[in-house]
Amino acid sequence: MTAATQLRRFGPAALLVAAQALLGAGPAGANGAASDATALRDRVRAWRAAHEKEVVRELADLLALPNLAANREEIEANARHLVGMLERRGIAARVLRIGEAPPTVYGELRVPGAKRTVVFYAHVDGQPADPAQWQSHPFQPVLRTGPLPTAAGGAAPETVGLAAVAGPLDPEWRLFARSASDDKGPIVGLLAALDALRAAGVAPSVNLKLFFEAEEEAGSPHLREILAAHKDLLAADAWIFADGPVHPTRRYQVVYGGRGVVGLELTVYGATRALHSGNYGNWAPNPALLLAGLLAGMRDAEGRILISGFYDDVRPPTELERRAAAAVPPVEEALLREVGLARSEADGRLQDRVMLPALNLRGLAAGDVGAKARNAIPTEAQASLDFRLVPDQTPERVQALVEEHVRGAGFHVVREAPDLATRLAHPRIARLVWDEGYPAARTSMELPVSRAVAAIVGEATGQPAIETPTLGGSLPLHLFAEVLHAPLLVVPMVNHDNNQHAADENLRLQNLWDGIEIYALLMARLGEEWP
Amino acid sequence: MTAATQLRRFGPAALLVAAQALLGAGPAGANGAASDATALRDRVRAWRAAHEKEVVRELADLLALPNLAANREEIEANARHLVGMLERRGIAARVLRIGEAPPTVYGELRVPGAKRTVVFYAHVDGQPADPAQWQSHPFQPVLRTGPLPTAAGGAAPETVGLAAVAGPLDPEWRLFARSASDDKGPIVGLLAALDALRAAGVAPSVNLKLFFEAEEEAGSPHLREILAAHKDLLAADAWIFADGPVHPTRRYQVVYGGRGVVGLELTVYGATRALHSGNYGNWAPNPALLLAGLLAGMRDAEGRILISGFYDDVRPPTELERRAAAAVPPVEEALLREVGLARSEADGRLQDRVMLPALNLRGLAAGDVGAKARNAIPTEAQASLDFRLVPDQTPERVQALVEEHVRGAGFHVVREAPDLATRLAHPRIARLVWDEGYPAARTSMELPVSRAVAAIVGEATGQPAIETPTLGGSLPLHLFAEVLHAPLLVVPMVNHDNNQHAADENLRLQNLWDGIEIYALLMARLGEEWP
Repeated sequence: MTAATQLRRFGPAALLVAAQALLGAGPAGANGAASDATALRDRVRAWRAAHEKEVVRELADLLALPNLAANREEIEANARHLVGMLERRGIAARVLRIGEAPPTVYGELRVPGAKRTVVFYAHVDGQPADPAQWQSHPFQPVLRTGPLPTAAGGAAPETVGLAAVAGPLDPEWRLFARSASDDKGPIVGLLAALDALRAAGVAPSVNLKLFFEAEEEAGSPHLREILAAHKDLLAADAWIFADGPVHPTRRYQVVYGGRGVVGLELTVYGATRALHSGNYGNWAPNPALLLAGLLAGMRDAEGRILISGFYDDVRPPTELERRAAAAVPPVEEALLREVGLARSEADGRLQDRVMLPALNLRGLAAGDVGAKARNAIPTEAQASLDFRLVPDQTPERVQALVEEHVRGAGFHVVREAPDLATRLAHPRIARLVWDEGYPAARTSMELPVSRAVAAIVGEATGQPAIETPTLGGSLPLHLFAEVLHAPLLVVPMVNHDNNQHAADENLRLQNLWDGIEIYALLMARLGEEWP
Repeated sequence: MTAATQLRRFGPAALLVAAQALLGAGPAGANGAASDATALRDRVRAWRAAHEKEVVRELADLLALPNLAANREEIEANARHLVGMLERRGIAARVLRIGEAPPTVYGELRVPGAKRTVVFYAHVDGQPADPAQWQSHPFQPVLRTGPLPTAAGGAAPETVGLAAVAGPLDPEWRLFARSASDDKGPIVGLLAALDALRAAGVAPSVNLKLFFEAEEEAGSPHLREILAAHKDLLAADAWIFADGPVHPTRRYQVVYGGRGVVGLELTVYGATRALHSGNYGNWAPNPALLLAGLLAGMRDAEGRILISGFYDDVRPPTELERRAAAAVPPVEEALLREVGLARSEADGRLQDRVMLPALNLRGLAAGDVGAKARNAIPTEAQASLDFRLVPDQTPERVQALVEEHVRGAGFHVVREAPDLATRLAHPRIARLVWDEGYPAARTSMELPVSRAVAAIVGEATGQPAIETPTLGGSLPLHLFAEVLHAPLLVVPMVNHDNNQHAADENLRLQNLWDGIEIYALLMARLGEEWP
């Protein structure tokens, strides 16, 4: 059933609630044309063309608020601002609070007659930003005529004064600020989509819930608690995540999951004091070499993890996932050139590789190197690792397998720095300290909602959506399945080259424009395409 | 011929030169008793007992001067100070300068009628010292009532104000400062030995030359040049090195050689920028893991070097060396306990192990560990290594073998950080930067001077000297054979637990007292015992 059909079925009275009370839209008669996705997209586009500056200004106002999850004052200001943005649109807004967690902003838009309920997720907090590393201040949004030059070259863009611009904004312009893309841009994209639907007189086809998290960049430590505490409020048939970047080809994608992650700090111990490498080298064990041997035994040079049983729990990809992965446009050659690599591990395709688990060595530290190197045997050697998990691996099982491997390599495993008695009792000692981690999540591509979302993103963008079975990166998506039993899909809108998590984060205007159309069509048509 | 015999043979006139002009000693008649080594030792001891504070103060004054070889200003101040110490004793002092080398301080004491000339060597420069890691400032000497507590425990010592001490100093007290043991303590030991002989009215039995190097801890890069330029000045029948520690049993030893050394900085490269370990982990090569694999392939956990051909040049020990090595008292169990190790590599005896070459990993660095760890794939990984060499290995040959090994592991070897074209052409790139290094040296234990020195150290200390075929550590001893064709022996005096090269370096007073006696008897008796 199309939105227009729905409006027709419930008649003007239903419309009054759906479109007028909630969205302030005009009478039902004006909406007949919305049954055609392309026609609706054109109307959303026309609304956007007439409101570009307003949309950019609303985003710039939100970006002007610093937003570190750990800074409660900053996060409260963002929450107040978000509530204002929702209330200005007549959306019932609440701030969800629990324990020490930063406030989550929640909004709801019930649509009479809608059979499905969808939660749109975004997060308002951002990565730390060091102004010294930015071209302009991270919380003083600046519009520029294009991307900043990179090591590969490029002309310096000009700064644009928004007030002085007559006519449409160039879609290649970019708004620079922390969280422009990750993840405040998508928040404004979602709300502008509602504005555009209202202007078009089209009600959403599903009940809408909005969930704006405030500690995603801090690893969402309270998310499980928040979801559990508001289980009924957050009940839904699906969650759509408005986070993450589009495909590097600039094509839009639907992402069905992400890898899990668990981090490990691994320390191997030698003598209690640094021994002279001449006097004692070849006699006193060298913990840095023991660590190198231990690490080298965990993974081969092509990325295959050698820990016994590591792949036992790995769920093989489905036929649909395999086909989707094969259809993801190639990015490998360009990426290799860009980062100066002659080849990738196993010469693999990126999408195929991230459908497997990974062992990454984030850091190594022992003794000193370079000018500070001393002729001594280090007292300990430290490695920091992250494991990326795929379905159906769990952090607990991975921890057990890794520890079994470490023990199998002859190490006594400890949790704290060993005391003298422990040192004297065990020739090889490894301290393993794990972070909590979380498992992977992957929504089945076969679900009706999966097919519907992919189809609508294709309609909104005029070409088939890329379907990405999983991101290589990790988001705590598993919680939504575990706590709320709801399938989850990621529909990103922001440019891939947005400098996410780094200096000079930015959002390309065309991506914002496209995001408004994608989210508007999802809101308006998902109830129809998803029987 | 004893010193007394010599004095008798040359008569009072000779004594006047030997003892009065040079040492300011009294008339010959006073010295008859010195023909007895034990009696001479007792007289040296009595002099020391009467001058303990002076000796400690002279050392503390020298230790107050920072002495990094690379810091020219510091080293010049040390040289001026040493010249003053020699001149106060009436010893002709010179500063040897050549090119960019730090100044070497040279002193000479000719003894009429002496047939042999012996050079005593020590070095005035020290290892870098980070005050943050020291209990007291490395260049503000502190006397404490004992060693600092270790991981094994021990009571914290008290600080001693030298001025306030009445009566003799406790020989277990220790003086803490950089170079207290390595190697300024022995410089003061040598000069105090001369003072004690002068007070005893005993002339040396050999012509004495003093050679105080100023860049030993920097690897003696100019030593060859210095020796070659002053070949005639430095002509001698033997060199005695006053460097290195006594045996861990606290027994005194004669050391016939040391291992060579060559250092390597090894860097492995990944992508030109840190890539997100989720998005790209398992696709972008991880240089830290490549480095771990490369290092693990160079050496097994028991210290056996796996680099092809590495042991081909190793000269097997002689029968006398094997017997001497077997006679070295066992230290292994106590040392293991002291430094908290359950076992040594290959469960070997220390002396046997250092008669073999060693590969030591001094340091590892890549990305970050602990709280600073980020979910990124490091752009490069660095290892610092030192190789300890034995006769007849050469640094050049070792370098060639290591590079062959690195190439055999699939790495393209470069000297500088690779440019983009190099990165794109080679999947694995390792940068190898070697220091100059030097080969091992080992003086034959069969030489008459070897037998004489061992005998005198035995006389001075009241029990047979331990004869150590080689130190595990490295000294550029080979140059003396190569450039000056002189045999070289090491006669150490400092405590083995001196924290050499580390924080809280210290000298135990009993070792300083013993050193004065050993060096005094060598000066007084070597000409007699060495026909």
